[in-house]
Amino acid sequence: MTFVPTDYLPYDFANRRHIGPSPAEMAEMLQIVGAKDLDALIDDTLPAKIRQKEPLEFGKAKSERELLHHMKITAAKNKVLTSLIGQGYHGTVTPPAIQRNIFENPAWYTAYTPYQPEISQGRLEALLNFQTMVSDLTGLDIANASLLDEATACAEAMTMAQRVAKTKVQGFFIDENCHPQNIAVMKTRAAPLGIDIIVGNPDTLNAAQVFGAIFQYPGTHGHLRDFTDQISQLHEHKAIGIIAADPLSLTLLKEPGAMGADIAVGSTQRFGVPVGYGGPHAAYMATKANYARNMPGRIVGVSIDSRGNRAYRLSLQTREQHIRREKATSNVCTAQALLAVMAGFYAVFHGPDGLKAIAQRIHRKTVRLARGLQDAGFSIEPDTFFDTITVDVGPLQEAVMKSAVDEGINLRRVGTTKVGITLDERTRPATIRQVWRAFGITDRGTDLTAEYRMPDPLIRQSSYLTHPVFHMNRAETEMMRYMRRLADRDLALDRAMIPLGSCTMKLNSAAEMMPVTWDEFSLLHPFVPKDQAAGYLEMIEDLSEKLCDVTGYNAISMQPNSGAQGEYAGLLTIAGYHRAQGQGHRNICLIPMSAHGTNPASAQMVGWKVVPIQSDENGDIDLKDFKAKATEHADNLAGCMITYPSTHGVFEETVIEVCKITHDNGGQVYIDGANMNAMVGLSRPGDLGGDVSHLNLHKTFCIPHGGGGPGMGPIGVKSHLIDYLPGDPNTGTGAVSAAPYGSPSLLPISWAYCLMMGGEGLTQATRVAILNANYIAKRLEGAFDVLYKGPTGRVAHECIIDTRPFNESAHVTVDDIAKRLIDCGFHAPTMSWPVAGTLMIEPTESETKAELDRFCDAMLSIRADIAAIENGTMDAENNPLKNAPHTVEDLVGDWNRPYPREAGCFPPGAFRVDKYWAPVNRVDNVWGDRNLTCTCPPMEEYAEAAE
Amino acid sequence: MTFVPTDYLPYDFANRRHIGPSPAEMAEMLQIVGAKDLDALIDDTLPAKIRQKEPLEFGKAKSERELLHHMKITAAKNKVLTSLIGQGYHGTVTPPAIQRNIFENPAWYTAYTPYQPEISQGRLEALLNFQTMVSDLTGLDIANASLLDEATACAEAMTMAQRVAKTKVQGFFIDENCHPQNIAVMKTRAAPLGIDIIVGNPDTLNAAQVFGAIFQYPGTHGHLRDFTDQISQLHEHKAIGIIAADPLSLTLLKEPGAMGADIAVGSTQRFGVPVGYGGPHAAYMATKANYARNMPGRIVGVSIDSRGNRAYRLSLQTREQHIRREKATSNVCTAQALLAVMAGFYAVFHGPDGLKAIAQRIHRKTVRLARGLQDAGFSIEPDTFFDTITVDVGPLQEAVMKSAVDEGINLRRVGTTKVGITLDERTRPATIRQVWRAFGITDRGTDLTAEYRMPDPLIRQSSYLTHPVFHMNRAETEMMRYMRRLADRDLALDRAMIPLGSCTMKLNSAAEMMPVTWDEFSLLHPFVPKDQAAGYLEMIEDLSEKLCDVTGYNAISMQPNSGAQGEYAGLLTIAGYHRAQGQGHRNICLIPMSAHGTNPASAQMVGWKVVPIQSDENGDIDLKDFKAKATEHADNLAGCMITYPSTHGVFEETVIEVCKITHDNGGQVYIDGANMNAMVGLSRPGDLGGDVSHLNLHKTFCIPHGGGGPGMGPIGVKSHLIDYLPGDPNTGTGAVSAAPYGSPSLLPISWAYCLMMGGEGLTQATRVAILNANYIAKRLEGAFDVLYKGPTGRVAHECIIDTRPFNESAHVTVDDIAKRLIDCGFHAPTMSWPVAGTLMIEPTESETKAELDRFCDAMLSIRADIAAIENGTMDAENNPLKNAPHTVEDLVGDWNRPYPREAGCFPPGAFRVDKYWAPVNRVDNVWGDRNLTCTCPPMEEYAEAAE
Repeated sequence: MTFVPTDYLPYDFANRRHIGPSPAEMAEMLQIVGAKDLDALIDDTLPAKIRQKEPLEFGKAKSERELLHHMKITAAKNKVLTSLIGQGYHGTVTPPAIQRNIFENPAWYTAYTPYQPEISQGRLEALLNFQTMVSDLTGLDIANASLLDEATACAEAMTMAQRVAKTKVQGFFIDENCHPQNIAVMKTRAAPLGIDIIVGNPDTLNAAQVFGAIFQYPGTHGHLRDFTDQISQLHEHKAIGIIAADPLSLTLLKEPGAMGADIAVGSTQRFGVPVGYGGPHAAYMATKANYARNMPGRIVGVSIDSRGNRAYRLSLQTREQHIRREKATSNVCTAQALLAVMAGFYAVFHGPDGLKAIAQRIHRKTVRLARGLQDAGFSIEPDTFFDTITVDVGPLQEAVMKSAVDEGINLRRVGTTKVGITLDERTRPATIRQVWRAFGITDRGTDLTAEYRMPDPLIRQSSYLTHPVFHMNRAETEMMRYMRRLADRDLALDRAMIPLGSCTMKLNSAAEMMPVTWDEFSLLHPFVPKDQAAGYLEMIEDLSEKLCDVTGYNAISMQPNSGAQGEYAGLLTIAGYHRAQGQGHRNICLIPMSAHGTNPASAQMVGWKVVPIQSDENGDIDLKDFKAKATEHADNLAGCMITYPSTHGVFEETVIEVCKITHDNGGQVYIDGANMNAMVGLSRPGDLGGDVSHLNLHKTFCIPHGGGGPGMGPIGVKSHLIDYLPGDPNTGTGAVSAAPYGSPSLLPISWAYCLMMGGEGLTQATRVAILNANYIAKRLEGAFDVLYKGPTGRVAHECIIDTRPFNESAHVTVDDIAKRLIDCGFHAPTMSWPVAGTLMIEPTESETKAELDRFCDAMLSIRADIAAIENGTMDAENNPLKNAPHTVEDLVGDWNRPYPREAGCFPPGAFRVDKYWAPVNRVDNVWGDRNLTCTCPPMEEYAEAAE
Repeated sequence: MTFVPTDYLPYDFANRRHIGPSPAEMAEMLQIVGAKDLDALIDDTLPAKIRQKEPLEFGKAKSERELLHHMKITAAKNKVLTSLIGQGYHGTVTPPAIQRNIFENPAWYTAYTPYQPEISQGRLEALLNFQTMVSDLTGLDIANASLLDEATACAEAMTMAQRVAKTKVQGFFIDENCHPQNIAVMKTRAAPLGIDIIVGNPDTLNAAQVFGAIFQYPGTHGHLRDFTDQISQLHEHKAIGIIAADPLSLTLLKEPGAMGADIAVGSTQRFGVPVGYGGPHAAYMATKANYARNMPGRIVGVSIDSRGNRAYRLSLQTREQHIRREKATSNVCTAQALLAVMAGFYAVFHGPDGLKAIAQRIHRKTVRLARGLQDAGFSIEPDTFFDTITVDVGPLQEAVMKSAVDEGINLRRVGTTKVGITLDERTRPATIRQVWRAFGITDRGTDLTAEYRMPDPLIRQSSYLTHPVFHMNRAETEMMRYMRRLADRDLALDRAMIPLGSCTMKLNSAAEMMPVTWDEFSLLHPFVPKDQAAGYLEMIEDLSEKLCDVTGYNAISMQPNSGAQGEYAGLLTIAGYHRAQGQGHRNICLIPMSAHGTNPASAQMVGWKVVPIQSDENGDIDLKDFKAKATEHADNLAGCMITYPSTHGVFEETVIEVCKITHDNGGQVYIDGANMNAMVGLSRPGDLGGDVSHLNLHKTFCIPHGGGGPGMGPIGVKSHLIDYLPGDPNTGTGAVSAAPYGSPSLLPISWAYCLMMGGEGLTQATRVAILNANYIAKRLEGAFDVLYKGPTGRVAHECIIDTRPFNESAHVTVDDIAKRLIDCGFHAPTMSWPVAGTLMIEPTESETKAELDRFCDAMLSIRADIAAIENGTMDAENNPLKNAPHTVEDLVGDWNRPYPREAGCFPPGAFRVDKYWAPVNRVDNVWGDRNLTCTCPPMEEYAEAAE
């Protein structure tokens, strides 16, 4: 008897695990959408001329076990030495309880940005802790949560200074002691905006020439100085003083606020977030209260819910680019929420005493290290320092560097005659002896008494982290429960579909996540010698090749560490190209009205002028308008920014013509890759005429959203643009992010996804994403109007439903529907974008038919309620939609409502036993902005709120 | 300025993280309990004469980071080769989603045994899945969840057969094809019970001689045979047929039920549970319906709650040793719940098709391997097989074994001329080539066509895993949500204190847990050459030394893989010693009435007669009674089993005298280590006069309870007993567990705990455990009677409160209080043990003052309700205690109760926002036992229940 193999698709292959509907479910769904088979549906949906010719081919897909084996081999090619390079990246110890309960816990890492506050109270509280920590340590009134890295935070601070300074001069002063990557990114950012950068010694500052100045504290080579005088001078000239400060040093040192600084920025990486070869980690920004509305990035604030109970929410959202578009103050979108949560918890775990003790230990060790070197005759600078010293070794620099590597230590090369050493939380006595041995000192013990070597006037006088949350009992049991309680307040992908249009909330599989926390990926400093990062480089090269195959581009830059950053980098690349062609004057950018808000904001950042393009009634780009504008601006056309498939969820046939028109008029085409999840394997932006695209790896390529970051936004370009990619100062396009490869410790996730899916699996994911969207569109047909469809009546991977009519017929707003979906156990779809009063639904391929049906049942029941309001059988104001979300408080209290408790709390879709209960009733947004509080409220208020 | 170090105790040292109350809290608590300081409290509590003389000293405690570094170094000393040794241990692939969401998730691993069903519905469902899987695969009616390992399961099956067989003969037949460790453990277990073991070829079975027989399927060397005839013969003689079967093979092979077997046992290790150098993993037992009440181990069953909704619970608890004591059928207590949950999920993930495909792939590879060897001229047996073959290599055995190791492969040494090879889920084509190369075959490809080489009559005909749960959509998103939903239904240590007296539910810290899942610990086969396990052996040696220091014993055996197993092993050791002294007739065991139920059950298992000893009115051992019984039985006194501090939570001063009396009368002293958490660093059982003790590493030494296992129960002995420790056939005391070191992959947890606490930290933990218990006793004083106290009015690490008066005064039972505590967000203390109608509370050192207060507030409010019933202001039947636990169903439905919703659902102690809601109302225990259902109910019933 020979084998009759079952036709079973093994569980352990990703295209089985990643793709929600089973084959049987797909057959049912295809029948409902009215397609013969999946091929037919795709043929209906994607115009033939935009389909790619060759199937995507990556070789045989790996099983989970094969993948992890392959990852182990790749990881082993990275050499984990002890890096004392400093320069803004420091060894840190992630408390295992944080690693297990946050970093490796899907309840935290699969969450979305907390735009829906009622289902986000846990992470909002965690982020408020982060903000409070930053505000306290910097001595400034208000902090955001958070920014991408310190270098971009410096650049954001610079442009913010430009906005708020009451002076018209265009100079900006940069302390020469700033970390090189901070200087580089600020220079990149300054150029298109016409800012004149002056780099120099703070003593040479001429405050009259500048709208602001930034100082590094401690300096990149360890110097400590008080910038109070400089900032006073700046203020005399109505300019802004910025300090880029290491938050750990601020536990011992005079804080920026006490120096009069208007803005402080920095990295919280060393608060328990592994260096990860450069990222991700959270940068911070803090400022004075009067500048709150000018600060970029997300800000968590305190408000109340409809019962008057305390509730957290994102404050001042009107500052953000999705509202302000080209008038936005920044294109910051994806931040580093998960990492900010970790850093905040690190502060909660340690408390002020613990942080201070860590800083003291580091300083004490640095003092010992310095004494040993000095006793052996080495000359070190500066005299006073926190954790960093620079040693003059004359012609022996190379010898010392090499000798250190032989000892397992990476030092920093400073100039040609010096070596920098920065100690950190991981430094052990043995580490100091290793360093000494690298300098030829072998007979030294580490039991030296250590005195402060910080200047007395710079010793911090004020207290910090006084809030009770930083004085919790820190027994691990208590901390574990606190993390669990916060996690339980939130609704993330580990409990329900998050059908956010354009945000592609898909499975982040456990196997993909595992390598991220391996030492070989997480402990590498971004500036180690290349041979120590061979595993990373191999992965980056292979992933880049695969992304080129997917997109039809010729090269990838991994530097941008968010999607918005990718847009900006892409536009810079185009600008660089134009300049090289002698076309540097081109500065007109055509952007459809329906574009992501980051698009115009990014164009503004490269100094371009945005010319909006109308949409036709089907939501497509109005080709006539586009052609007219392109022709009108032909002499100055820099390019266009389009999204494909469109933000209306349709594969526009005209895309090829749009590209051609742009090219014909001298422009370059930027295709936003936000919707790549509808294209992978089926169509390639490069083939359509795109010159550059960014890829949201945290959308299509499985990097988890983390409650609002991390992300990665690499860009792909055609050959003619390769020379102008960012990060290479020789091309004129400078660095856009602090680290050479953005946030590379996330890349194992995307690489694993590609390797486990294979080309066929990736293509199938796209096809099923389209099937799932069309299934929802079909099931909601009749009840809701699907706003935009292709010529054959199909949508792409998302669909937009119109809720505007209900506002008129029943006074039901899109908000009411979104909040009612919480009762049903769902995160709402994207609200009012790209069209106000609509919901954009993207199910992704990861969701099963059962989950899609649960969602559709919920939506249809909401529609039935609306109908009841319309026909008067349900009260127009006191109804389940207006009162949503319903909470346990509603159930416990008096129920003076014209509908039963059961109907209020258990609408179709809601689980019975496993129901998710929102911890607060509907949050009052206006109250929160009117009564701005962005740090943890006093404990009495907690007590009151509890009553 | 010199450093003024803060007196801050770093967070990252375990004695800070493990110990709940902060120094300030401790000061408050000491004031309340009325002790000057902690020293004074301990002096009050522990009689001076039982205190140890020297402090515990383990050197400097390690920080988390130092610990993990040390663990990495130790782990690296284990060499991870591919083991094809088989013999009941197989390579398996743990699905990453199961590893992350179950094995590494405190919501699962910190749970307690599901004795309180209302807060355990999640893991009860998971275990019901496991039982259904076992029942289906074996073709038998009912299965338990679960047993310790296959060898002990065989022994349990043997003794069960003895109980149920309707024949008086004392013979038991063991198939010579059983795994050697199964035979060894059955022999150990048989001897004291007077069972005559006959090992032989199944063809030689004489059914008239035996009460039962066990057959291995497939045989240990790969043989497949149908045991139908043998079992028919057995049945003719009213004897019992047992098959020890590999459950994976049963996806392809005729099942034991179809052969007429009465009992099937086996290991589910290869269902996704790493080998871990021998354990832990879950063994199974299944039997026919009419034997259900005779089956050992825990059985999950289906019942209803007070609303008639479906609810799960543990069935037939009256079989268990804590009820039946010396009449118990087994001493099985801690099982392997967490591992059974994993194995059950493995089946859910793969479904029947997936499991079958895995088995087919393994078989196909085995066929290819065999063909390659046969084509090269090797003689293999058997002709038909599933995954195991044996190759005759004559005098080259040693050469082939060594050559295989050089290829990275461990094979099995069979006799002196043969080599065994067993393939598994991890076998890759490259593995087969490595094996071939070990046999000198280098020119072979693996692309052979493979035919079945299983006997046609043995191909399975029946279907299995037909229940919908095994046909869920297996997209990872769906599985992740299913795991989360089940986890959310349960209340574990990650949400609240579990104040279970005698169960020591303390912190299992993240750092301690991390090494368990490292490959170097998890992938080692238990029978690899010692040099490949150097890291394990070093750890075992060091941990043994530390445990000797802690206990005052001279040697430790790590073989017992549960506490009860440790008791049994300890008694066997004593029996071996007596035999060696020519005192083999000694068979009387004195056991206080208050002892753990496992004590008398264990004594019964070694063939001893239990003589119970009265307690005096203070709960202490009645010394007069003890002396009288000891003297009366002096000629036959084997020993005594006592618990210290007593199960009443008191340090009895008389313990030294009890030991002396026992010794004076020729007996040995067994001190149960269940309460070691009250002794570590303060008092040592070895010093008190104990000859042997077991240590529950899952109590005092931080191995998590896992919802009812895993555990480890090593025993410590004095020098004179070392030669009689189990596991060494030469001593006459045979093996007690399947693997040489029990469940060694758990040992990193206990080792890490010792290394991170140091001697001082461990001692402080004990002191604070005593403080916490005395604090609770003090706070409850006046409201509840604390039943037993030492002469100075102190309790040890737990306290017993009397609830019997309330039954008379208010008809409130201990059950009512336990269920009401669920409303307050707590797992109940231990109920009705060691005294019926009482609650035994053990807070452990891990709980903070805030959590203790929350618990005391809850208890006091319950007492206030009782008072209200007593004085008639609260209805005697319709009150919050009788109606507890309150659920969302109560809130949603009509509330016809004389107290408000608020009072029902939010008693003091309950969290407001973060309240834990029991998923079912009070479970009806009687209904469940009357209507016994121990497999997943049909889907229609699910639907009904959902309505």
